[in-house]
Amino acid sequence: MERMNRKQEILDHGYIEMVECMGSDERIIEAARMSTQAGFKGWPGDERLLSYLWRNQHSSPFEMCEAVFEIKAPIFVARQWMRHRTQSYNEASARYTELCTEDYLPTVERLLNVDTENKQAQGTGAELGAWDAEVFRRDMAQQYENAGLLYGEMLEAGVPKELARCVLPVARYTVFRAKANLLNWLKFVRLRADSHAQYEIRVYADALEDMLAEKFPRTLALFREHG
Amino acid sequence: MERMNRKQEILDHGYIEMVECMGSDERIIEAARMSTQAGFKGWPGDERLLSYLWRNQHSSPFEMCEAVFEIKAPIFVARQWMRHRTQSYNEASARYTELCTEDYLPTVERLLNVDTENKQAQGTGAELGAWDAEVFRRDMAQQYENAGLLYGEMLEAGVPKELARCVLPVARYTVFRAKANLLNWLKFVRLRADSHAQYEIRVYADALEDMLAEKFPRTLALFREHG
Amino acid sequence: MERMNRKQEILDHGYIEMVECMGSDERIIEAARMSTQAGFKGWPGDERLLSYLWRNQHSSPFEMCEAVFEIKAPIFVARQWMRHRTQSYNEASARYTELCTEDYLPTVERLLNVDTENKQAQGTGAELGAWDAEVFRRDMAQQYENAGLLYGEMLEAGVPKELARCVLPVARYTVFRAKANLLNWLKFVRLRADSHAQYEIRVYADALEDMLAEKFPRTLALFREHG
Amino acid sequence: MERMNRKQEILDHGYIEMVECMGSDERIIEAARMSTQAGFKGWPGDERLLSYLWRNQHSSPFEMCEAVFEIKAPIFVARQWMRHRTQSYNEASARYTELCTEDYLPTVERLLNVDTENKQAQGTGAELGAWDAEVFRRDMAQQYENAGLLYGEMLEAGVPKELARCVLPVARYTVFRAKANLLNWLKFVRLRADSHAQYEIRVYADALEDMLAEKFPRTLALFREHG
Repeated sequence: MERMNRKQEILDHGYIEMVECMGSDERIIEAARMSTQAGFKGWPGDERLLSYLWRNQHSSPFEMCEAVFEIKAPIFVARQWMRHRTQSYNEASARYTELCTEDYLPTVERLLNVDTENKQAQGTGAELGAWDAEVFRRDMAQQYENAGLLYGEMLEAGVPKELARCVLPVARYTVFRAKANLLNWLKFVRLRADSHAQYEIRVYADALEDMLAEKFPRTLALFREHG
Repeated sequence: MERMNRKQEILDHGYIEMVECMGSDERIIEAARMSTQAGFKGWPGDERLLSYLWRNQHSSPFEMCEAVFEIKAPIFVARQWMRHRTQSYNEASARYTELCTEDYLPTVERLLNVDTENKQAQGTGAELGAWDAEVFRRDMAQQYENAGLLYGEMLEAGVPKELARCVLPVARYTVFRAKANLLNWLKFVRLRADSHAQYEIRVYADALEDMLAEKFPRTLALFREHG
Repeated sequence: MERMNRKQEILDHGYIEMVECMGSDERIIEAARMSTQAGFKGWPGDERLLSYLWRNQHSSPFEMCEAVFEIKAPIFVARQWMRHRTQSYNEASARYTELCTEDYLPTVERLLNVDTENKQAQGTGAELGAWDAEVFRRDMAQQYENAGLLYGEMLEAGVPKELARCVLPVARYTVFRAKANLLNWLKFVRLRADSHAQYEIRVYADALEDMLAEKFPRTLALFREHG
Repeated sequence: MERMNRKQEILDHGYIEMVECMGSDERIIEAARMSTQAGFKGWPGDERLLSYLWRNQHSSPFEMCEAVFEIKAPIFVARQWMRHRTQSYNEASARYTELCTEDYLPTVERLLNVDTENKQAQGTGAELGAWDAEVFRRDMAQQYENAGLLYGEMLEAGVPKELARCVLPVARYTVFRAKANLLNWLKFVRLRADSHAQYEIRVYADALEDMLAEKFPRTLALFREHG
């Protein structure tokens, strides 16, 4: 089984990489044809069936494909991600190992331009100037640095990792692998690549969608057309 | 991605075939090392870690592997099988297609020798002679034939498939694909290859276990030693 | 905890009964308000929020309610039902106990009037007259009776239940309990009360929907309006 | 349906409360008896069956009971908790609402006495004196206070909640509701009330187990005796 090396940098210190993938558009047709005891007949003829399956929510054939990704993301992004309970996870443990040393620091542009359509998630409406944003950015960086220093001191002095980590910010990066079937990955993308999702998870979902599109081009074309 | 052709005949008309498989013993180690940010280091050194994971029920790394099987089995076997809700299924539909034409007919030996250790599932204790078994076997075959004939007549006369199938016996064969992760396949094998399981599903579970052992030899060795 | 006695007869020998139920429309609001740290404020004011949740697919609050049903249905209906893997099941075992003695016999009207909109599931188009339907109905009943007699003889002679059942038709009734959260019950109803679903499962799904409507009137009103 | 008010304070600012509960030891027997078409017969006679079910891992009857808890816990505890994917969750959202204002501050005793049996999770072995512990505790409190002040300033200046929260520590409290069936709650307790689990989640698991014991006394007695 080939090892894919597709890996994409995300945010200031993160990445997403497709580790492994099983199945194909053809396999989806094969699985669907179980119901009528036929197999895959060939493209473009079977595109009609694939389209019919997708548009009529005959979802079980899309469960026959599977993909594993490795993700480095801020803890608050990982928290949103892992609310998807149909994925299997393996994550770095802050009890057994020192966490990543990087924290996510939003750019000034991100602090200024609230790009989400989600009104509820926007700021209070007060005007935030470029200079304010720059100052807050420096304050955030300082706060992260202090947290990291205290974490290091505590570890050195013998405080257990599981307690020393208390002071680390939710912007601290973590690394995990996530595995799901194609149907559930597409549900993830639908929710997390949506304009109402937070920008910091949307960039991962967008990259993930592109990687799926390389392996399942016909299914992703249907997903992008019909949602 | 290679297509495996491993297929094994089961019972009088059934089979099990591994359609596709993802992951390996190495991948399990890689996933486990997410918690300490290291990767696969090599056999036999990492066998210690694999054994530790298995014996201490650190189960999430074993979820990172996946396998799809195609199965032809009697409906009553499929019914037991699909109680395992952690698998994804695609099955022949008796609404849209005529069902298989074969029915499972137990051998005389099977009728005589109740091989299960499960006392509850055994017969009433009345003595069943070889001659009786032979007679019942012929009666069963006759009953199956009558059911098949009536089914065919109804279809020909225009009765919908979804109603005509009412008369078919639960011994009628069906075909389906089932997909699960390695951890859940091993839970399936533990339950269904057990001496208390019905013989007719045990033969499928045994074959499935052998196929997994080819792809995940070290994990299956641990499964067979420690359960 | 009160025991509800709502039970409804279905088909010729089946029934559905709500055994137990947890939660309410109010509890859904409470769960949704976790995200903003408020609680239930009162109807009709909170109907706006309930409607917003439903229409925008904020589904997790609807998972906080749960219901258990007991169902007596033909095996082929139980087979369709149990494809819903988000429900928990407990079913009569044909290995340990003799099965129900009743089989589902479609009415002449059902044999004549293919009521489903699902073209694929209909008959071949040959004209089936009332007299033919009546004859087939008698043939089916005879086939059922023969199956039941052979089953009884085999049990008496000492054939294990798990083998004797081979000859029973998929129209034989079985009994089971099914439990799911409200969100998954509504997904079940959406699929199985649909005009494309087989009539024999639709009648159960319709009754189930009515029982849910008594316990969750506001949620079911939204479900019925918006789907 | 009664509303239970059982609520227990946990750690310095947390709590756990049973919100709602469905089923009983009797219901488990009823569900198990589906397989033989009998019902609940009465205690103490049926204790034998309950014990048989538990010891032989006939787990599906225990899935027929359900419980909802509301939990206030530090984010790092919530992260461990939500790795249990068989529970349904509703949680306070840091995008839509300001988070709790409290952070978890370990006691000096906790910093000094590594109470876990899990060697991997312990400190480096350096000797940590009471005075050091007291100093670190003050440093942690100071770090928390700085984080809270910066968070408040950013919100006031118009930075979106979803970005301002970046600086908050993983010790910050969050509130959520979690719902699972009895079988899955017991799996949670087995893992999280274990001596190898982190103290900060163990105290919640212990309290949860006690609350379950009030509602399902016979099942919990079996759980405590046989694991």
